[in-house]
Amino acid sequence: MAKIAPLSGFPEFLPEQRWVERAVIDSLAATFELHGFANIETRAVEPLDQLLRKGDTSKEVYLLRRLQEESAEGHAGMGLHFDLTVPFARYVLENAGKLEFPFRRFQIQKVWRGERPQEGRFREFAQADIDIVGRDTLPFHHDVEVTRVMVDALTRLDFLPAFRLQVNNRKLIQGFYAGLGIEQIDEVMRLVDKLDKLPKEKVHELLLAEAGIDAATADRVLELATIQAADDSFVDAVRALGVEHELLDEGLDELAALVRGCADLVSERVAVVADLSIARGLDYYTGTVFETRLAGYESLGSICSGGRYDALASDGKNTYPGVGISLGVSRVLVPLISKGLVTASRAVPSAVLIALVDEESRAEADAVASSLRARGVACEVAPSASKFGKQIRTAERRGIPFVWFAQADGTHQVKDIRSGEQVEADPATWTPPANDLRPTIASADNQ
Amino acid sequence: MAKIAPLSGFPEFLPEQRWVERAVIDSLAATFELHGFANIETRAVEPLDQLLRKGDTSKEVYLLRRLQEESAEGHAGMGLHFDLTVPFARYVLENAGKLEFPFRRFQIQKVWRGERPQEGRFREFAQADIDIVGRDTLPFHHDVEVTRVMVDALTRLDFLPAFRLQVNNRKLIQGFYAGLGIEQIDEVMRLVDKLDKLPKEKVHELLLAEAGIDAATADRVLELATIQAADDSFVDAVRALGVEHELLDEGLDELAALVRGCADLVSERVAVVADLSIARGLDYYTGTVFETRLAGYESLGSICSGGRYDALASDGKNTYPGVGISLGVSRVLVPLISKGLVTASRAVPSAVLIALVDEESRAEADAVASSLRARGVACEVAPSASKFGKQIRTAERRGIPFVWFAQADGTHQVKDIRSGEQVEADPATWTPPANDLRPTIASADNQ
Repeated sequence: MAKIAPLSGFPEFLPEQRWVERAVIDSLAATFELHGFANIETRAVEPLDQLLRKGDTSKEVYLLRRLQEESAEGHAGMGLHFDLTVPFARYVLENAGKLEFPFRRFQIQKVWRGERPQEGRFREFAQADIDIVGRDTLPFHHDVEVTRVMVDALTRLDFLPAFRLQVNNRKLIQGFYAGLGIEQIDEVMRLVDKLDKLPKEKVHELLLAEAGIDAATADRVLELATIQAADDSFVDAVRALGVEHELLDEGLDELAALVRGCADLVSERVAVVADLSIARGLDYYTGTVFETRLAGYESLGSICSGGRYDALASDGKNTYPGVGISLGVSRVLVPLISKGLVTASRAVPSAVLIALVDEESRAEADAVASSLRARGVACEVAPSASKFGKQIRTAERRGIPFVWFAQADGTHQVKDIRSGEQVEADPATWTPPANDLRPTIASADNQ
Repeated sequence: MAKIAPLSGFPEFLPEQRWVERAVIDSLAATFELHGFANIETRAVEPLDQLLRKGDTSKEVYLLRRLQEESAEGHAGMGLHFDLTVPFARYVLENAGKLEFPFRRFQIQKVWRGERPQEGRFREFAQADIDIVGRDTLPFHHDVEVTRVMVDALTRLDFLPAFRLQVNNRKLIQGFYAGLGIEQIDEVMRLVDKLDKLPKEKVHELLLAEAGIDAATADRVLELATIQAADDSFVDAVRALGVEHELLDEGLDELAALVRGCADLVSERVAVVADLSIARGLDYYTGTVFETRLAGYESLGSICSGGRYDALASDGKNTYPGVGISLGVSRVLVPLISKGLVTASRAVPSAVLIALVDEESRAEADAVASSLRARGVACEVAPSASKFGKQIRTAERRGIPFVWFAQADGTHQVKDIRSGEQVEADPATWTPPANDLRPTIASADNQ
């Protein structure tokens, strides 16, 4: 057999690490469902022409080919999806007649990108997407709704670092630039987006050199981009810049409504901040845009992004506007888990190891196990009837907190191997403390 | 946009169908965990040399290529996994130093095969695998254990048709053939495996013509293959054929122990039957083998298969013997779900639609929704403040059983739109009946 080595960009977890990932995914799914979002999964492959619609990601697509391609059947035209938005748009069109709109869906799946692996970037990774899609129209209050849902979902992940949602609105920026008389709006946006990498002075230079605007206009553009507020006070700050435009008014109203609409959910764990520097691939978003930073992990970039797109999909007859956010599950978890900053309390689901007196009593041990399982207590029977000390060490190595002993007189005892306390117990009624029933998740900070 | 059409061999579900699939996956995972199995996921891709070790599946592998392959970095050597056994064997070797043996794991993931789509065969499908792997040794009682776990898991899927596990043992067959003096054991097995497609007489002919055995020996071979029993009475039936061999004894002992070891779990829903015709790719299994038929869907073939392999993986220093079973989740569910034979009671998780008096009261409706969600009641606020009759029809179309109304006097009422009954309710305490809290699953038979 060839040498076995991990594959760069394709992270995998040990069982106890996977437990953390599953806990996160289960928690996300439970929150999304409480808000009425239905789950779907889409196939891993899409026709290449669909995948290439987004343009600049084309080089990242993995194409499929069968090992022995005998026919011209067309696998050459299929690739692995690189996000969950393109497949979702296709799914909506394909099933539009069978869906009720507004359609709320969540989707938690792996996606693949052939890019160079680096910190926070993988070739295979999990995303959790929520979207609300309407037929022909989708009122703005759904922008507030998806934000509230994601804030709720992130808040419940209380073993992860704090999140900071940064929100902006494309209409606001576009209207502001238009009000300033700027013609090359997209070019100005592209340059302002460099603010997180270049100093302000350098961006100012570029605005003059590449976008052809004057210094006073560039000043205004940069003043707008530096406005931040955790409440709707940003409206006055923008108004103070003295720019007037109908689209600006609309953007300000929407962004203010979004920040106010989330105010009651904001906490120490999750902040929602209007940040007028956020651009977020404004090429296809049409209103609200989101980015999210993880406290202490700002170098990962945005770990939860999205926005409003007024034409997610269209079939000629109907247009389907949508608003959605995508959480980079792997991007958040792989660094935290692989550094051991978030851990599960044990590697196996078992709360109890049933000790074996001898191999002949395995059926009786199985009966005890069945009795515990019938009440939801995960357990396993010792692999062999070795000395009790060795059986206890087996439990210890697996992190199993309790060992069960059948006594010669037909009674039973259970030992908490952490405290050494051993008590009489009935397989038909005993349960471990709630905290020991399933592996628990802890973060380095809480320990 | 190009014409949107489903892709043959890549099944996808509507939200209410996906609910059924998730219920099955959640139930399987919960059962596997009760038995101490830890979950893992492996990456979707494996090096091609690993994927081709199984030999005859080579033509089914999907290879990966990046759209713009600039470097010789080696994606040409990667393919999508076509089962979960090859990746698991690689995972065990890669992480052997960090795992505790015997290692119990379950894995529920999509796999891909480039074969021609046909009934029960897909190009992308989900499998649920359980395996127990030892280091160097793995006692036989684990064969009984995996069988019991899968019987338990299938039993709990009470909205699916009945399952029939057919078990056999390679040592039994091999020993029997050897005791008969047969030299071309593999060739005889291959021909006997045709019994489910060809009449007995035809197989008899082939045994003489192709395996070169005499008519009397062929009679014995076919007599063995027709033995079936739901208990250990098959042992006497085999003994009555008068063949003696040490390996036969071992196989008989193991198979009898397996059938006896599952006797207490057998029910109307799940049968365990010794079936001495089962061959199941005996090329790499070394003892126990399993196949499973779904009542009324025998044409699907085996939907749950596996066995004992004494060398699942080896790194030169250690060998890792294993025993496992793989349930074809998609193979079972796609026909049942797409024919509407198993359905969810609604397409959305929401149990309640909060009606809206006017758009200005949306924040109050959100507050009611938050209050319900805090106690685990999934709900959604009406998309618009249309007439109440229209809002009720919105709920009806989605299958949402309850509509919530805030009254002008500050009290609240909730209406069961199926019965029309409307009662006063407090958002801080009201919960729907347990049966309405989440979508429920029903099979055509139970309705």
